[in-house]
Amino acid sequence: MLKLVFLETSLELVPPNIARHPAIVKDAKRRKKKPTKIILDDSKHHAAMKDLDAREKRGRPDIIHQCLLSVLDSRASRFVDVYVHTIDDTIIWINNETRLPRNYNRFIGLMEDLFEKREIRANDEVLLKILDVELEDLFKDVEAVVVLTEKGDKDERFLRDVFRSKERIAICIGAFPHGDFEDDTLEILKEFNAEFIAIAKEPLTSLYITNRVICIYEDERVLSDRNGQKYA
Amino acid sequence: MLKLVFLETSLELVPPNIARHPAIVKDAKRRKKKPTKIILDDSKHHAAMKDLDAREKRGRPDIIHQCLLSVLDSRASRFVDVYVHTIDDTIIWINNETRLPRNYNRFIGLMEDLFEKREIRANDEVLLKILDVELEDLFKDVEAVVVLTEKGDKDERFLRDVFRSKERIAICIGAFPHGDFEDDTLEILKEFNAEFIAIAKEPLTSLYITNRVICIYEDERVLSDRNGQKYA
Repeated sequence: MLKLVFLETSLELVPPNIARHPAIVKDAKRRKKKPTKIILDDSKHHAAMKDLDAREKRGRPDIIHQCLLSVLDSRASRFVDVYVHTIDDTIIWINNETRLPRNYNRFIGLMEDLFEKREIRANDEVLLKILDVELEDLFKDVEAVVVLTEKGDKDERFLRDVFRSKERIAICIGAFPHGDFEDDTLEILKEFNAEFIAIAKEPLTSLYITNRVICIYEDERVLSDRNGQKYA
Repeated sequence: MLKLVFLETSLELVPPNIARHPAIVKDAKRRKKKPTKIILDDSKHHAAMKDLDAREKRGRPDIIHQCLLSVLDSRASRFVDVYVHTIDDTIIWINNETRLPRNYNRFIGLMEDLFEKREIRANDEVLLKILDVELEDLFKDVEAVVVLTEKGDKDERFLRDVFRSKERIAICIGAFPHGDFEDDTLEILKEFNAEFIAIAKEPLTSLYITNRVICIYEDERVLSDRNGQKYA
Protein backbone atom coordinates (compact mmCIF):
# COMPACT_ATOMS: atom_id res chain seq x y z
CA MET A 1 0.00 0.00 0.00
CA LEU A 2 1.22 3.45 -0.92
CA LYS A 3 0.37 6.37 1.33
CA LEU A 4 0.04 9.48 -0.77
CA VAL A 5 0.23 12.58 1.43
CA PHE A 6 -0.43 16.03 -0.03
CA LEU A 7 1.45 18.52 2.13
CA GLU A 8 0.43 22.04 3.17
CA THR A 9 -2.49 21.84 0.75
CA SER A 10 -3.90 25.24 -0.18
CA LEU A 11 -7.38 24.37 1.13
CA GLU A 12 -8.97 26.14 4.09
CA LEU A 13 -12.07 28.02 5.21
CA VAL A 14 -12.02 31.82 5.05
CA PRO A 15 -10.06 32.94 8.15
CA PRO A 16 -12.14 35.03 10.62
CA ASN A 17 -9.83 38.06 10.38
CA ILE A 18 -10.78 38.71 6.74
CA ALA A 19 -14.39 37.46 6.90
CA ARG A 20 -15.81 40.98 6.81
CA HIS A 21 -14.01 42.05 3.68
CA PRO A 22 -16.51 43.04 0.93
CA ALA A 23 -15.07 40.49 -1.54
CA ILE A 24 -15.78 37.69 0.95
CA VAL A 25 -19.15 39.00 2.15
CA LYS A 26 -20.40 39.36 -1.43
CA ASP A 27 -19.40 35.83 -2.42
CA ALA A 28 -20.81 34.32 0.80
CA LYS A 29 -24.09 36.15 0.32
CA ARG A 30 -24.44 35.00 -3.29
CA ARG A 31 -23.86 31.42 -2.15
CA LYS A 32 -26.14 31.82 0.88
CA LYS A 33 -23.43 30.73 3.33
CA LYS A 34 -21.68 32.34 6.29
CA PRO A 35 -18.38 34.03 5.33
CA THR A 36 -16.33 31.72 7.60
CA LYS A 37 -18.03 28.63 6.15
CA ILE A 38 -16.79 29.10 2.60
CA ILE A 39 -13.48 27.89 1.16
CA LEU A 40 -10.87 30.59 0.61
CA ASP A 41 -10.45 31.08 -3.15
CA ASP A 42 -7.90 33.47 -4.59
CA SER A 43 -9.86 33.73 -7.86
CA LYS A 44 -12.75 35.35 -5.98
CA HIS A 45 -11.23 36.67 -2.73
CA HIS A 46 -8.00 38.08 -4.07
CA ALA A 47 -8.63 41.61 -2.77
CA ALA A 48 -9.37 40.29 0.72
CA MET A 49 -6.21 38.21 0.89
CA LYS A 50 -3.53 40.85 0.55
CA ASP A 51 -2.65 41.03 4.26
CA LEU A 52 -2.78 37.30 5.01
CA ASP A 53 0.37 35.56 6.25
CA ALA A 54 1.98 33.25 3.68
CA ARG A 55 -0.46 34.76 1.21
CA GLU A 56 1.23 33.23 -1.85
CA LYS A 57 0.54 29.70 -0.60
CA ARG A 58 -3.16 30.17 0.14
CA GLY A 59 -6.55 30.19 -1.55
CA ARG A 60 -5.78 27.69 -4.31
CA PRO A 61 -8.10 24.68 -3.76
CA ASP A 62 -8.01 24.02 -7.52
CA ILE A 63 -4.57 22.47 -7.05
CA ILE A 64 -5.67 19.64 -4.77
CA HIS A 65 -8.86 19.17 -6.81
CA GLN A 66 -6.88 18.43 -9.96
CA CYS A 67 -4.33 16.24 -8.15
CA LEU A 68 -7.06 14.17 -6.51
CA LEU A 69 -8.89 13.63 -9.79
CA SER A 70 -5.65 12.38 -11.35
CA VAL A 71 -4.98 9.97 -8.49
CA LEU A 72 -8.51 8.63 -8.15
CA ASP A 73 -8.89 8.16 -11.93
CA SER A 74 -5.73 6.07 -12.13
CA ARG A 75 -5.40 2.32 -12.14
CA ALA A 76 -3.09 2.77 -9.13
CA SER A 77 -5.90 4.25 -7.06
CA ARG A 78 -6.95 1.02 -5.38
CA PHE A 79 -3.42 0.56 -4.02
CA VAL A 80 -3.17 4.11 -2.75
CA ASP A 81 -4.30 5.53 0.58
CA VAL A 82 -4.83 9.26 0.11
CA TYR A 83 -4.30 11.91 2.80
CA VAL A 84 -4.60 15.67 2.47
CA HIS A 85 -2.61 17.69 5.01
CA THR A 86 -3.77 21.30 4.78
CA ILE A 87 -1.95 24.56 5.29
CA ASP A 88 -3.61 24.89 8.71
CA ASP A 89 -2.68 21.32 9.73
CA THR A 90 -6.00 19.58 9.19
CA ILE A 91 -5.63 15.97 8.05
CA ILE A 92 -8.26 14.63 5.65
CA TRP A 93 -8.48 10.97 4.66
CA ILE A 94 -9.99 10.23 1.27
CA ASN A 95 -11.49 6.85 0.51
CA ASN A 96 -9.82 5.73 -2.72
CA GLU A 97 -13.17 4.62 -4.11
CA THR A 98 -14.67 8.08 -3.73
CA ARG A 99 -16.02 9.55 -6.94
CA LEU A 100 -15.07 13.15 -6.34
CA PRO A 101 -17.08 15.91 -8.08
CA ARG A 102 -15.23 16.70 -11.30
CA ASN A 103 -16.78 20.13 -11.47
CA TYR A 104 -14.71 22.65 -9.52
CA ASN A 105 -17.64 24.52 -7.99
CA ARG A 106 -19.18 21.27 -6.76
CA PHE A 107 -15.85 20.17 -5.33
CA ILE A 108 -15.71 23.43 -3.35
CA GLY A 109 -19.24 22.80 -2.07
CA LEU A 110 -18.22 19.30 -0.96
CA MET A 111 -15.16 20.60 0.88
CA GLU A 112 -17.32 23.17 2.69
CA ASP A 113 -19.63 20.33 3.71
CA LEU A 114 -16.67 18.30 4.92
CA PHE A 115 -15.29 21.11 7.09
CA GLU A 116 -18.78 21.56 8.56
CA LYS A 117 -19.62 17.89 9.21
CA ARG A 118 -16.06 16.51 9.51
CA GLU A 119 -17.18 13.41 7.58
CA ILE A 120 -18.93 12.70 4.30
CA ARG A 121 -20.76 9.41 3.92
CA ALA A 122 -22.71 7.74 1.15
CA ASN A 123 -24.62 4.49 1.73
CA ASP A 124 -22.96 3.87 5.09
CA GLU A 125 -19.50 4.21 3.62
CA VAL A 126 -17.13 6.96 4.71
CA LEU A 127 -15.91 8.84 1.63
CA LEU A 128 -14.01 11.71 3.25
CA LYS A 129 -13.09 12.27 6.86
CA ILE A 130 -11.19 14.81 8.92
CA LEU A 131 -8.95 12.76 11.21
CA ASP A 132 -7.97 13.57 14.79
CA VAL A 133 -4.29 13.02 14.09
CA GLU A 134 -1.16 15.05 13.51
CA LEU A 135 0.96 14.94 10.38
CA GLU A 136 3.64 12.83 12.11
CA ASP A 137 1.09 10.12 12.87
CA LEU A 138 0.84 9.38 9.15
CA PHE A 139 4.51 8.38 9.05
CA LYS A 140 4.65 6.06 12.08
CA ASP A 141 3.74 2.85 10.29
CA VAL A 142 5.75 3.21 7.08
CA GLU A 143 9.21 1.95 6.08
CA ALA A 144 10.14 5.01 4.07
CA VAL A 145 9.06 8.63 3.75
CA VAL A 146 9.78 10.23 0.39
CA VAL A 147 9.25 13.91 -0.41
CA LEU A 148 9.05 15.27 -3.93
CA THR A 149 10.71 18.66 -4.13
CA GLU A 150 12.65 20.64 -6.70
CA LYS A 151 15.39 20.88 -4.07
CA GLY A 152 15.76 17.12 -3.60
CA ASP A 153 19.22 15.53 -3.81
CA LYS A 154 17.98 12.27 -5.35
CA ASP A 155 16.38 11.66 -8.74
CA GLU A 156 13.59 9.63 -10.31
CA ARG A 157 15.67 6.44 -10.34
CA PHE A 158 15.71 6.56 -6.55
CA LEU A 159 11.91 6.71 -6.54
CA ARG A 160 11.73 3.62 -8.76
CA ASP A 161 14.12 1.81 -6.38
CA VAL A 162 11.97 2.70 -3.37
CA PHE A 163 8.85 1.40 -5.14
CA ARG A 164 10.66 -1.85 -5.98
CA SER A 165 12.28 -2.45 -2.61
CA LYS A 166 9.77 -1.27 -0.01
CA GLU A 167 6.15 -2.15 0.68
CA ARG A 168 4.88 0.52 3.05
CA ILE A 169 5.85 3.91 1.71
CA ALA A 170 4.63 7.46 2.27
CA ILE A 171 5.06 9.73 -0.74
CA CYS A 172 4.67 13.43 0.03
CA ILE A 173 3.80 16.07 -2.55
CA GLY A 174 3.31 19.76 -1.79
CA ALA A 175 -0.09 21.03 -2.94
CA PHE A 176 0.41 24.79 -2.79
CA PRO A 177 1.20 27.22 -5.64
CA HIS A 178 4.47 28.91 -4.65
CA GLY A 179 7.16 28.91 -2.00
CA ASP A 180 8.77 26.23 0.12
CA PHE A 181 7.64 23.87 2.85
CA GLU A 182 7.31 25.48 6.29
CA ASP A 183 10.06 24.77 8.81
CA ASP A 184 7.60 22.85 11.02
CA THR A 185 6.81 20.50 8.15
CA LEU A 186 10.47 19.99 7.24
CA GLU A 187 11.29 19.20 10.85
CA ILE A 188 8.69 16.43 10.96
CA LEU A 189 9.87 15.02 7.64
CA LYS A 190 13.49 14.98 8.79
CA GLU A 191 12.50 13.30 12.05
CA PHE A 192 11.33 10.36 9.94
CA ASN A 193 14.51 10.40 7.85
CA ALA A 194 12.63 11.44 4.75
CA GLU A 195 14.39 11.18 1.40
CA PHE A 196 14.08 14.26 -0.82
CA ILE A 197 13.64 13.58 -4.52
CA ALA A 198 13.71 16.06 -7.39
CA ILE A 199 11.87 14.68 -10.42
CA ALA A 200 13.72 17.41 -12.28
CA LYS A 201 15.83 20.45 -11.45
CA GLU A 202 13.13 22.76 -12.73
CA PRO A 203 9.90 24.00 -11.11
CA LEU A 204 7.07 21.57 -11.82
CA THR A 205 3.43 21.76 -10.75
CA SER A 206 1.84 19.59 -8.08
CA LEU A 207 -0.38 18.14 -10.78
CA TYR A 208 2.55 17.09 -12.93
CA ILE A 209 4.44 15.60 -9.98
CA THR A 210 1.34 13.65 -8.99
CA ASN A 211 0.84 12.34 -12.53
CA ARG A 212 4.46 11.30 -12.86
CA VAL A 213 4.60 9.57 -9.46
CA ILE A 214 1.39 7.66 -10.17
CA CYS A 215 2.64 6.58 -13.59
CA ILE A 216 5.96 5.35 -12.18
CA TYR A 217 4.18 3.54 -9.36
CA GLU A 218 1.92 1.85 -11.91
CA ASP A 219 4.94 0.78 -13.96
CA GLU A 220 6.81 -0.57 -10.97
CA ARG A 221 4.05 -2.09 -8.86
CA VAL A 222 0.62 -2.14 -10.46
CA LEU A 223 1.23 -3.19 -14.06
CA SER A 224 4.34 -5.35 -13.61
CA ASP A 225 4.85 -8.78 -12.11
CA ARG A 226 7.67 -9.50 -9.66
CA ASN A 227 10.24 -9.93 -12.41
CA GLY A 228 9.51 -6.46 -13.74
CA GLN A 229 7.70 -7.96 -16.72
CA LYS A 230 5.04 -5.56 -17.96
CA TYR A 231 1.49 -6.85 -18.18
CA ALA A 232 0.50 -4.17 -20.60
CA MET B 1 6.72 16.31 -32.82
CA LEU B 2 3.66 14.66 -31.36
CA LYS B 3 0.23 15.89 -32.42
CA LEU B 4 -2.19 15.41 -29.57
CA VAL B 5 -5.76 15.62 -30.82
CA PHE B 6 -8.67 15.62 -28.37
CA LEU B 7 -11.68 14.23 -30.23
CA GLU B 8 -15.35 15.23 -29.96
CA THR B 9 -14.48 17.41 -26.99
CA SER B 10 -17.47 18.28 -24.83
CA LEU B 11 -16.98 22.03 -25.31
CA GLU B 12 -19.46 24.24 -27.13
CA LEU B 13 -21.57 27.38 -26.81
CA VAL B 14 -25.18 27.01 -25.67
CA PRO B 15 -27.11 25.88 -28.75
CA PRO B 16 -29.79 28.39 -29.90
CA ASN B 17 -32.65 25.90 -29.51
CA ILE B 18 -32.27 25.79 -25.72
CA ALA B 19 -31.08 29.39 -25.21
CA ARG B 20 -34.44 30.50 -23.79
CA HIS B 21 -34.62 27.84 -21.11
CA PRO B 22 -34.80 29.45 -17.62
CA ALA B 23 -31.66 27.59 -16.40
CA ILE B 24 -29.67 29.13 -19.26
CA VAL B 25 -31.22 32.59 -19.08
CA LYS B 26 -30.57 32.82 -15.35
CA ASP B 27 -26.92 31.84 -15.64
CA ALA B 28 -26.34 34.15 -18.63
CA LYS B 29 -27.95 37.05 -16.79
CA ARG B 30 -25.85 36.52 -13.67
CA ARG B 31 -22.73 36.50 -15.82
CA LYS B 32 -23.93 39.46 -17.91
CA LYS B 33 -23.58 37.60 -21.20
CA LYS B 34 -25.95 36.60 -24.00
CA PRO B 35 -27.33 33.06 -23.56
CA THR B 36 -25.76 31.85 -26.83
CA LYS B 37 -22.36 33.32 -25.87
CA ILE B 38 -21.85 31.13 -22.81
CA ILE B 39 -20.32 27.67 -22.71
CA LEU B 40 -22.78 24.81 -22.21
CA ASP B 41 -22.22 23.37 -18.72
CA ASP B 42 -24.13 20.37 -17.45
CA SER B 43 -23.47 21.37 -13.83
CA LYS B 44 -25.53 24.54 -14.33
CA HIS B 45 -27.68 23.84 -17.38
CA HIS B 46 -28.71 20.27 -16.66
CA ALA B 47 -32.44 20.98 -16.74
CA ALA B 48 -32.14 22.74 -20.11
CA MET B 49 -30.21 19.89 -21.71
CA LYS B 50 -32.66 17.05 -21.45
CA ASP B 51 -33.88 17.16 -25.06
CA LEU B 52 -30.49 17.75 -26.71
CA ASP B 53 -29.18 15.17 -29.19
CA ALA B 54 -26.28 13.11 -27.86
CA ARG B 55 -27.02 14.69 -24.51
CA GLU B 56 -24.72 12.36 -22.56
CA LYS B 57 -21.66 13.58 -24.46
CA ARG B 58 -22.31 17.31 -24.01
CA GLY B 59 -21.83 20.11 -21.48
CA ARG B 60 -18.66 18.81 -19.82
CA PRO B 61 -15.91 21.39 -20.51
CA ASP B 62 -14.23 20.36 -17.23
CA ILE B 63 -12.90 17.28 -19.04
CA ILE B 64 -10.80 19.16 -21.59
CA HIS B 65 -9.77 21.71 -18.95
CA GLN B 66 -8.19 19.01 -16.79
CA CYS B 67 -6.62 17.19 -19.74
CA LEU B 68 -5.06 20.40 -21.06
CA LEU B 69 -3.62 21.32 -17.67
CA SER B 70 -2.01 17.88 -17.44
CA VAL B 71 -0.50 18.15 -20.92
CA LEU B 72 0.72 21.74 -20.62
CA ASP B 73 2.22 21.12 -17.15
CA SER B 74 4.27 18.18 -18.40
CA ARG B 75 7.88 18.12 -19.49
CA ALA B 76 6.60 16.67 -22.76
CA SER B 77 4.61 19.83 -23.51
CA ARG B 78 7.26 21.51 -25.63
CA PHE B 79 7.31 18.51 -27.99
CA VAL B 80 3.54 18.35 -28.28
CA ASP B 81 1.27 20.21 -30.67
CA VAL B 82 -2.17 20.35 -29.10
CA TYR B 83 -5.47 20.38 -31.02
CA VAL B 84 -8.99 20.32 -29.64
CA HIS B 85 -11.65 18.96 -31.98
CA THR B 86 -15.05 19.76 -30.50
CA ILE B 87 -18.33 17.92 -30.59
CA ASP B 88 -19.59 20.41 -33.18
CA ASP B 89 -16.46 20.04 -35.35
CA THR B 90 -14.60 23.20 -34.41
CA ILE B 91 -10.81 22.78 -34.41
CA ILE B 92 -8.84 24.76 -31.84
CA TRP B 93 -5.05 24.96 -31.84
CA ILE B 94 -3.39 25.56 -28.48
CA ASN B 95 0.08 27.03 -28.28
CA ASN B 96 2.03 24.64 -26.05
CA GLU B 97 3.51 27.57 -24.15
CA THR B 98 0.08 28.87 -23.14
CA ARG B 99 -0.44 29.22 -19.42
CA LEU B 100 -4.07 28.22 -19.29
CA PRO B 101 -6.23 29.49 -16.38
CA ARG B 102 -6.11 26.80 -13.70
CA ASN B 103 -9.36 28.01 -12.20
CA TYR B 104 -12.33 26.36 -13.90
CA ASN B 105 -14.53 29.46 -14.02
CA ARG B 106 -11.74 31.49 -15.60
CA PHE B 107 -11.09 28.74 -18.13
CA ILE B 108 -14.77 28.91 -19.11
CA GLY B 109 -14.48 32.69 -19.49
CA LEU B 110 -11.45 32.26 -21.73
CA MET B 111 -13.22 29.70 -23.94
CA GLU B 112 -16.18 32.09 -24.33
CA ASP B 113 -13.72 34.78 -25.38
CA LEU B 114 -12.11 32.40 -27.86
CA PHE B 115 -15.43 31.46 -29.50
CA GLU B 116 -16.24 35.18 -29.76
CA LYS B 117 -12.89 36.42 -31.12
CA ARG B 118 -11.66 33.18 -32.73
CA GLU B 119 -8.15 33.93 -31.50
CA ILE B 120 -6.54 34.80 -28.16
CA ARG B 121 -3.26 36.68 -28.17
CA ALA B 122 -0.86 37.94 -25.52
CA ASN B 123 2.11 40.14 -26.41
CA ASP B 124 1.75 39.50 -30.13
CA GLU B 125 1.82 35.76 -29.65
CA VAL B 126 -1.16 33.57 -30.57
CA LEU B 127 -2.12 31.43 -27.56
CA LEU B 128 -5.34 29.85 -28.81
CA LYS B 129 -6.88 29.90 -32.25
CA ILE B 130 -9.90 28.45 -34.00
CA LEU B 131 -8.58 27.05 -37.28
CA ASP B 132 -10.34 27.01 -40.64
CA VAL B 133 -9.65 23.33 -41.17
CA GLU B 134 -11.45 20.02 -40.93
CA LEU B 135 -10.51 17.15 -38.66
CA GLU B 136 -8.98 15.18 -41.54
CA ASP B 137 -6.56 18.03 -42.28
CA LEU B 138 -4.82 17.31 -38.97
CA PHE B 139 -3.86 13.83 -40.16
CA LYS B 140 -2.48 14.66 -43.60
CA ASP B 141 1.12 15.28 -42.56
CA VAL B 142 1.65 12.46 -40.06
CA GLU B 143 3.11 8.98 -40.42
CA ALA B 144 0.72 7.32 -38.01
CA VAL B 145 -2.67 8.03 -36.44
CA VAL B 146 -3.29 6.31 -33.13
CA VAL B 147 -6.61 6.36 -31.26
CA LEU B 148 -6.94 5.52 -27.59
CA THR B 149 -10.16 3.64 -26.95
CA GLU B 150 -11.37 0.95 -24.59
CA LYS B 151 -12.34 -1.01 -27.71
CA GLY B 152 -8.85 -0.97 -29.24
CA ASP B 153 -7.30 -4.24 -30.42
CA LYS B 154 -3.72 -3.24 -29.52
CA ASP B 155 -2.20 -2.56 -26.10
CA GLU B 156 0.20 -0.14 -24.43
CA ARG B 157 3.27 -1.93 -25.85
CA PHE B 158 2.11 -0.97 -29.31
CA LEU B 159 1.97 2.68 -28.24
CA ARG B 160 5.56 2.48 -26.97
CA ASP B 161 6.62 0.94 -30.30
CA VAL B 162 4.97 3.74 -32.24
CA PHE B 163 6.73 6.36 -30.11
CA ARG B 164 10.07 4.63 -30.69
CA SER B 165 9.70 4.00 -34.41
CA LYS B 166 7.87 7.02 -35.80
CA GLU B 167 8.54 10.75 -35.68
CA ARG B 168 5.33 12.42 -36.82
CA ILE B 169 2.44 10.88 -34.94
CA ALA B 170 -1.11 11.97 -34.17
CA ILE B 171 -2.46 10.58 -30.92
CA CYS B 172 -6.23 10.91 -30.53
CA ILE B 173 -8.05 10.88 -27.21
CA GLY B 174 -11.80 11.31 -26.79
CA ALA B 175 -12.69 14.18 -24.44
CA PHE B 176 -16.34 13.47 -23.71
CA PRO B 177 -17.89 11.78 -20.66
CA HIS B 178 -19.80 8.79 -22.03
CA GLY B 179 -20.57 6.90 -25.20
CA ASP B 180 -18.59 6.14 -28.33
CA PHE B 181 -17.06 8.11 -31.17
CA GLU B 182 -19.55 9.22 -33.82
CA ASP B 183 -19.59 7.30 -37.10
CA ASP B 184 -18.34 10.39 -38.97
CA THR B 185 -15.28 10.54 -36.72
CA LEU B 186 -14.59 6.82 -37.02
CA GLU B 187 -14.83 7.06 -40.81
CA ILE B 188 -12.17 9.77 -40.93
CA LEU B 189 -9.90 7.83 -38.56
CA LYS B 190 -10.22 4.67 -40.64
CA GLU B 191 -9.49 6.62 -43.82
CA PHE B 192 -6.07 7.38 -42.32
CA ASN B 193 -5.55 3.76 -41.26
CA ALA B 194 -5.68 4.67 -37.60
CA GLU B 195 -4.52 2.09 -35.07
CA PHE B 196 -6.87 1.59 -32.11
CA ILE B 197 -5.20 1.07 -28.75
CA ALA B 198 -6.80 0.07 -25.45
CA ILE B 199 -4.61 1.12 -22.53
CA ALA B 200 -6.75 -1.35 -20.59
CA LYS B 201 -9.91 -3.35 -21.14
CA GLU B 202 -11.78 -1.25 -18.59
CA PRO B 203 -13.38 2.19 -18.87
CA LEU B 204 -10.82 4.89 -18.08
CA THR B 205 -11.27 8.65 -18.00
CA SER B 206 -9.91 11.05 -20.62
CA LEU B 207 -7.75 12.56 -17.89
CA TYR B 208 -6.17 9.25 -16.98
CA ILE B 209 -5.57 8.31 -20.63
CA THR B 210 -3.94 11.70 -21.22
CA ASN B 211 -1.70 11.33 -18.16
CA ARG B 212 -0.64 7.82 -19.11
CA VAL B 213 0.08 8.72 -22.76
CA ILE B 214 2.14 11.75 -21.74
CA CYS B 215 4.12 9.72 -19.21
CA ILE B 216 4.89 6.98 -21.75
CA TYR B 217 5.87 9.58 -24.33
CA GLU B 218 8.21 11.18 -21.81
CA ASP B 219 9.78 7.81 -21.04
CA GLU B 220 10.25 6.89 -24.68
CA ARG B 221 11.14 10.22 -26.26
CA VAL B 222 11.66 13.09 -23.86
CA LEU B 223 13.67 11.62 -21.00
CA SER B 224 15.58 8.92 -22.87
CA ASP B 225 18.46 9.07 -25.31
CA ARG B 226 18.46 7.08 -28.56
CA ASN B 227 19.63 3.91 -26.84
CA GLY B 228 16.69 3.98 -24.48
CA GLN B 229 18.97 5.04 -21.62
CA LYS B 230 16.99 7.10 -19.12
CA TYR B 231 18.31 10.54 -18.28
CA ALA B 232 16.40 10.66 -15.01
